[in-house]
Amino acid sequence: MKNSAIVLLSGGLDSTVTAAIAIKAARCVFVHVNYGQRTEARELKAFKAIVRHYKAEAISINAAHYKIIGQSALTDKRIKIPKGDVNRRGIPSTYVPFRNAHMLSIAVAVAEARGAGAVYIGAVEEDGSGYPDCREEFFKAFEKAVRLGTKTSKKIRILTPLIHKNKEEIVKLGIRLGAPLRLTWSCYGAEQEACGKCDSCLLRLKGFEGARVKDPIRYKTIFGKSKK
Amino acid sequence: MKNSAIVLLSGGLDSTVTAAIAIKAARCVFVHVNYGQRTEARELKAFKAIVRHYKAEAISINAAHYKIIGQSALTDKRIKIPKGDVNRRGIPSTYVPFRNAHMLSIAVAVAEARGAGAVYIGAVEEDGSGYPDCREEFFKAFEKAVRLGTKTSKKIRILTPLIHKNKEEIVKLGIRLGAPLRLTWSCYGAEQEACGKCDSCLLRLKGFEGARVKDPIRYKTIFGKSKK
Repeated sequence: MKNSAIVLLSGGLDSTVTAAIAIKAARCVFVHVNYGQRTEARELKAFKAIVRHYKAEAISINAAHYKIIGQSALTDKRIKIPKGDVNRRGIPSTYVPFRNAHMLSIAVAVAEARGAGAVYIGAVEEDGSGYPDCREEFFKAFEKAVRLGTKTSKKIRILTPLIHKNKEEIVKLGIRLGAPLRLTWSCYGAEQEACGKCDSCLLRLKGFEGARVKDPIRYKTIFGKSKK
Repeated sequence: MKNSAIVLLSGGLDSTVTAAIAIKAARCVFVHVNYGQRTEARELKAFKAIVRHYKAEAISINAAHYKIIGQSALTDKRIKIPKGDVNRRGIPSTYVPFRNAHMLSIAVAVAEARGAGAVYIGAVEEDGSGYPDCREEFFKAFEKAVRLGTKTSKKIRILTPLIHKNKEEIVKLGIRLGAPLRLTWSCYGAEQEACGKCDSCLLRLKGFEGARVKDPIRYKTIFGKSKK
């Protein structure tokens, strides 16, 4: 029998390609965390569609209390989502304080309770967001904390298979693995059609462009032009 | 101006003595986390009373989704609270999977959002619970993950001032610092009067006995005898 693993699945491009990798290696439980992000309803819809696609076991965790921590454009509607600035240096306003530690703590607790041997998270360091909690060294340090802070004799690994990939490589890998990219959602702002303007949309579009593949989801505007 | 710090305060003996230490060193925000534990209502009452005592800023976080992870006698009423067995070896059924990582992730996010320089947690390794996430080496590893996974230039320290103290020393320290021990709540099971029988009550009573001080809270039974 396959080992079991927990996959953190937001419903975005990176986590879906990560799920496609994990599902080949382990019996997976997909975990979605609502942390009060403004596009949560749309993300959850994507999550459910991907769960159906893979016929996986799913847990949806409502951790919307995280919203009260504030300080991020993703959880505080008073802070504007930045547009069109993927070459900016430093940490963008969409950074949610220590979010990945929070996600991992939930996923590790699920793994420990179920005896799973790994937690997959689709974090990307190289061509990514500039978030400090997306760096490989953070995940290594967290994995050590997991080893010391859980009771399992079977150690729980933190796996970040996309950490050094860029968006183009992620799109290509997703297509090769048959990941349902048409079901994913990446936009930070809109909920019906992707805005095509926020950092997340721009990075995604750059990835599809580099891979010379048309992004299968719908956009309001692409590269400054309004969709007809 | 004093530095600011976040104190994880359940309302129990250890976290209250930790708060008494922290309040002398920093401007504190007391953070309480409801993780679906069966005595949450009573704990929250203790938390609020201690907040009033110290006139501190308070945040109460409802993370009751943690309950669905299960596997602990503290969050799953189908698992009995073990009685009178503080010399047992191994990890007791009251262990909640990776709970302290979850608590710390919340507290660190609050610290990061507010620019606080420390998170205090009243964990005890020596005379403690046998929980893996109460070991000093876990907190050291977690602190490293915090250093690598947050954006603050001002580093956030994880402080565990009680980690190597036994319950007797904690009671004595609490009294010396004027901590409001009468307002604390430790019992795992009961909500009106403490049961006097669960591990948490027994450890607490042993501490007061060692310190030759009467525990100011009310018990149903003490050392096998019913209270009149």
